[in-house]
Amino acid sequence: MIDTKKIDEVINQSGINLEGISIRNVGILAGKIEDALSIKYIRMDMGIPGLLAPDAGIEAHKAALNNADSAQYCSFAGTPELKEAGSRFIRTFLGKSIDPESIIPTVGAMHGCFVSIGLIASLYQGRDKIMTLDPGFAVNKLQAKIQRVGVECVDTYEKSGDALVEEIDRRLSEDTSIAALLWSSPCNPSWEVRSESELEKLAKVLERHNVTAIEDNAYFGFDSRRPGFLDPDDPDLAPSIMKYTDNYIALFSASKIFSYAGERVGFTAIGDALKDHRSQSLRKMFNQERFLDAFIQGGLYSIVASAPRSAQMAFASLLDFSSSGTFSIGDHLRPYSESAREMKRIFRKHGFDILYKEDSYGPVGDGFYFTVNHSGYSDGSLLLADMFRCGLTAVPLGIFGGGHPDGLRICTSLVPMHLMDEFDKRLSAFDALQ
Amino acid sequence: MIDTKKIDEVINQSGINLEGISIRNVGILAGKIEDALSIKYIRMDMGIPGLLAPDAGIEAHKAALNNADSAQYCSFAGTPELKEAGSRFIRTFLGKSIDPESIIPTVGAMHGCFVSIGLIASLYQGRDKIMTLDPGFAVNKLQAKIQRVGVECVDTYEKSGDALVEEIDRRLSEDTSIAALLWSSPCNPSWEVRSESELEKLAKVLERHNVTAIEDNAYFGFDSRRPGFLDPDDPDLAPSIMKYTDNYIALFSASKIFSYAGERVGFTAIGDALKDHRSQSLRKMFNQERFLDAFIQGGLYSIVASAPRSAQMAFASLLDFSSSGTFSIGDHLRPYSESAREMKRIFRKHGFDILYKEDSYGPVGDGFYFTVNHSGYSDGSLLLADMFRCGLTAVPLGIFGGGHPDGLRICTSLVPMHLMDEFDKRLSAFDALQ
Repeated sequence: MIDTKKIDEVINQSGINLEGISIRNVGILAGKIEDALSIKYIRMDMGIPGLLAPDAGIEAHKAALNNADSAQYCSFAGTPELKEAGSRFIRTFLGKSIDPESIIPTVGAMHGCFVSIGLIASLYQGRDKIMTLDPGFAVNKLQAKIQRVGVECVDTYEKSGDALVEEIDRRLSEDTSIAALLWSSPCNPSWEVRSESELEKLAKVLERHNVTAIEDNAYFGFDSRRPGFLDPDDPDLAPSIMKYTDNYIALFSASKIFSYAGERVGFTAIGDALKDHRSQSLRKMFNQERFLDAFIQGGLYSIVASAPRSAQMAFASLLDFSSSGTFSIGDHLRPYSESAREMKRIFRKHGFDILYKEDSYGPVGDGFYFTVNHSGYSDGSLLLADMFRCGLTAVPLGIFGGGHPDGLRICTSLVPMHLMDEFDKRLSAFDALQ
Repeated sequence: MIDTKKIDEVINQSGINLEGISIRNVGILAGKIEDALSIKYIRMDMGIPGLLAPDAGIEAHKAALNNADSAQYCSFAGTPELKEAGSRFIRTFLGKSIDPESIIPTVGAMHGCFVSIGLIASLYQGRDKIMTLDPGFAVNKLQAKIQRVGVECVDTYEKSGDALVEEIDRRLSEDTSIAALLWSSPCNPSWEVRSESELEKLAKVLERHNVTAIEDNAYFGFDSRRPGFLDPDDPDLAPSIMKYTDNYIALFSASKIFSYAGERVGFTAIGDALKDHRSQSLRKMFNQERFLDAFIQGGLYSIVASAPRSAQMAFASLLDFSSSGTFSIGDHLRPYSESAREMKRIFRKHGFDILYKEDSYGPVGDGFYFTVNHSGYSDGSLLLADMFRCGLTAVPLGIFGGGHPDGLRICTSLVPMHLMDEFDKRLSAFDALQ
């Protein structure tokens, strides 16, 4: 049994206050306690891969490194290999045709989103805000702030389908300075998936307001309820806004679907209605008036020149192996689903609830993230504080926005099945604190 | 002899106007002519490596790729290996002690400069401009514009030493909204090197105005006049502002000194007086009040998460091999000096002048870039147009700022010695146009 008293002693000595503790201090304090007590925290805070990078990626990556190619800048628009592979992947798994020209390799989806926010907010004179579905990835709001882009938020809690689309419609009518709607699906942190029916209606609303959809697909296809999404031979296709409008930016990343986070590569797919859009305010800001050119000149070249070449080649190989069925993303990611299912069971056993528990398809799937709360706590940071005293970490939902600061985001990636007994015991220690 | 008439025909058919031709169209049009006439242009426009990436980098890069490490985000502050290697490199070649904490790996010097400009302009309430020494790397001005940072320029033509420092002093007195002075040394495009004596005086002026020095060292040590700069056993040290002030940001890159441009890695060194500086306006913008934390959170994490891990390891190895004397940067770069010397001789023979011809140390060195003009042309783009008709490219100096739009930037990297006879012949064809 974990010794909460001894943990409390180390916490008291550290001078760090558990109430409102920052994510960074969670890591620092956990490290101190691990050293002092010779225990290991069960880390559910960090959204990082818990799997190994696939051999196929490492091999292609090494093969792409050589004296001639590594010396040269690759095209700022990206390597032809990754542009083709991204196009094929989207055709295979989304049934959507997209020109390789419209696939722009980036330094992860993070970079793609940073650039997209900046460009969209410069596209139309006087429309310099974006709207996010909350809770959502907190860094996107920092990206907007750094670029002096305003952010409006719509809470998705217990709101889906028509109710959600109607609220978005109403809010866009009220504030015409909003140029884009940004969300992730599956959602970090709630793991809600936006359904075909929602997306179809949403696309109509966005088109009516001339608002660009920015869909973050960092967790593309991670829906355990629909394993066919990740099987190229299965006709079941993942839901995406790309099917319903051509005024979209879709962000993809190798970091999570291929456990390739260290090598920093992703791509941004830009819809046909957007890529050739020309704007004088874009020219004024980025020296290019066509959206795609401004993305490459203002977002790739002027910030990083390009994404790293060899990582682009590794990502291209992994995408191609997936499109051809040689590599199964579903098999690769299965450990997360297994952990999520068991962790939810154990959380419930100890009096927790799944907070964002349903989307339009029913109970949310089992994957990388889910959210919990506990009837004894109205503030997620206090809930975290008590869990922390039992050797468990998580992230308070407050930082993700939305109306449920009582909740926590739980990441499953660092809790493999062999830790479940210990996880159960630590939640028993948590029970004892109540 | 190159057939200028046939080239003119292709140009006329292309519909592209040579007057004021963009860099991009130079490449496109050269490609068309190469296809039509089965000739190869002598490309002096692109500032890209003309050498092979060193084996030592490729080997270290491959060794750093593995299933466990490639899956994981590396520290946003960078790998310990590159932080240590950068610190050692600066100690070895600049005689300056710097804490590895202050070395932040970036996606090339481009990324380091983008972040630095944004942060410096948010550091002090009401001081949101930078000053550049012109001519200078044009993209830096685009980086400022994208981040809504104003730019003031000081022309360095025939101005060095006290005259230059005095002008900077006067301009900073007149405009107190300038928070940083940005320059490259050796300079892209002029290849001037700022001398020890200039830097010492400049540092005093900058400190008096509390202005941060941003020194772009992308071409670190490339001074053919002082080969000792690149020899760890030689007491001759490269001139750098880092020796004279601690309120600096120094940008380094693997792209040029190690011919490693495709893999996108560099580092930014942040001076002791700056890294711990705390500012409320920084906190407001980047959620962090300490400069170093804001750089990592607002510049690394929020834009790209981190520089690619394996490329960081390759760069670290190359830096360490250089610091230990196992790899000679000087030997690696020698082909550029040889080409520059011969190209200058041939240009002069055909009536050209070296435009930015001297710095405080005498005639500028032979390296990656130099500048030329020709008495028959008062507009660099017209000079380029006639050279283009003879199978030669370059970049008009106008886009680099400064008072000499009659000049051209010449890059030596793609003109190895075996092309010199042909280069001479093409300039003879140019003579025939006069």
